[in-house]
Amino acid sequence: MRQGALVVISGFAGAGKGTLVKELMKRYDNYALSVSMTTRSPRPGEKEGESYFFVTKEQFEKTIEENGFIEYAQYVGNYYGTPRAYVEEQMRSGKDVILEIEIQGAHKVRKLYPDAILIFVTPPSAQILKERLTGRGTETAEVIKKRMDRAAQESEGIEDYDYIAVNDDIETCVTNVRGMIEASHFRPALNEEFISQVRADLEKMATE
Amino acid sequence: MRQGALVVISGFAGAGKGTLVKELMKRYDNYALSVSMTTRSPRPGEKEGESYFFVTKEQFEKTIEENGFIEYAQYVGNYYGTPRAYVEEQMRSGKDVILEIEIQGAHKVRKLYPDAILIFVTPPSAQILKERLTGRGTETAEVIKKRMDRAAQESEGIEDYDYIAVNDDIETCVTNVRGMIEASHFRPALNEEFISQVRADLEKMATE
Repeated sequence: MRQGALVVISGFAGAGKGTLVKELMKRYDNYALSVSMTTRSPRPGEKEGESYFFVTKEQFEKTIEENGFIEYAQYVGNYYGTPRAYVEEQMRSGKDVILEIEIQGAHKVRKLYPDAILIFVTPPSAQILKERLTGRGTETAEVIKKRMDRAAQESEGIEDYDYIAVNDDIETCVTNVRGMIEASHFRPALNEEFISQVRADLEKMATE
Repeated sequence: MRQGALVVISGFAGAGKGTLVKELMKRYDNYALSVSMTTRSPRPGEKEGESYFFVTKEQFEKTIEENGFIEYAQYVGNYYGTPRAYVEEQMRSGKDVILEIEIQGAHKVRKLYPDAILIFVTPPSAQILKERLTGRGTETAEVIKKRMDRAAQESEGIEDYDYIAVNDDIETCVTNVRGMIEASHFRPALNEEFISQVRADLEKMATE
């Protein structure tokens, strides 16, 4: 059984990461979606184990102590983290595990799993990003300004990603990201067993 | 115009690199095949500018002096090299340039072009490699033994490649390699202009 890949998806707020991940999960059956754990309260419509695992501060800190997170961070007074057990279990079973996390988390994942594949999702232009954020109609001008500022900061980290996925048309974007993940299965790191076998056999034949 | 990728294809003798490259060139029109220069004499059926550019030792050494090779090596008394001008011209024009070269050459290319994509072609097993080499029926047992020994040595370098392409069924292999090359177009290094533009626009908006 070949080990699955670890796929990190980050990107600007408003880039369409959520839709992208939802489509990937809907269309292909070899992906497992990692669900984050948080201490913040569920918002209307959010489901336990689907949107997040909602836990108390004590439970979260106990998991930290047990080294139970791949990465975690505090944000506006709440904890957010990626539970390790699920991710490693799914990868071992051959599934590609998708993590939707922000840049700092992505860096931590890269350190722990150098073979993770990091994908940065971006709209086709800054102008379109602004329009998408404005178009939602649910945010104040101040919130939009904050998100644009944050996007400007985050854009500094794009080169640390393996791939950028331009989300102009969602169909094209899903197909492209699918291609990036599929290609990653052919990296030597995910085929160590095969390589070792060929190498051992060749060496054996060479000394015959 | 997006710059093309530099695609290095290496692999064991008998792995089917030649067929793979031929099929890629036949099926897709965004590839340019780099033709090597050599000082060895043409063999029956080999065509100037197609199999190789056949030149004199003096011409070859003049090209070396002019820094005209991406990589070159001596092998059994003859020079072999990859002319730089064609490769860079084609990449600039947006074509993905395919180089079929051996491992030492691949390492040199990687140093000069860190963003090159390196693909190692291998049969599905050492046993099948041996059968393919034997099955050609054109080689002596001694030559086959030499090639197997060389393959054993070369196998040590597989991890330096970005991808391994297992050539069991040629159709599948061509499709997989096509996927690796296509995915490589989404690496940040090949999208620097786009990234700079988005970044500049975001920063401009952030200060507005």
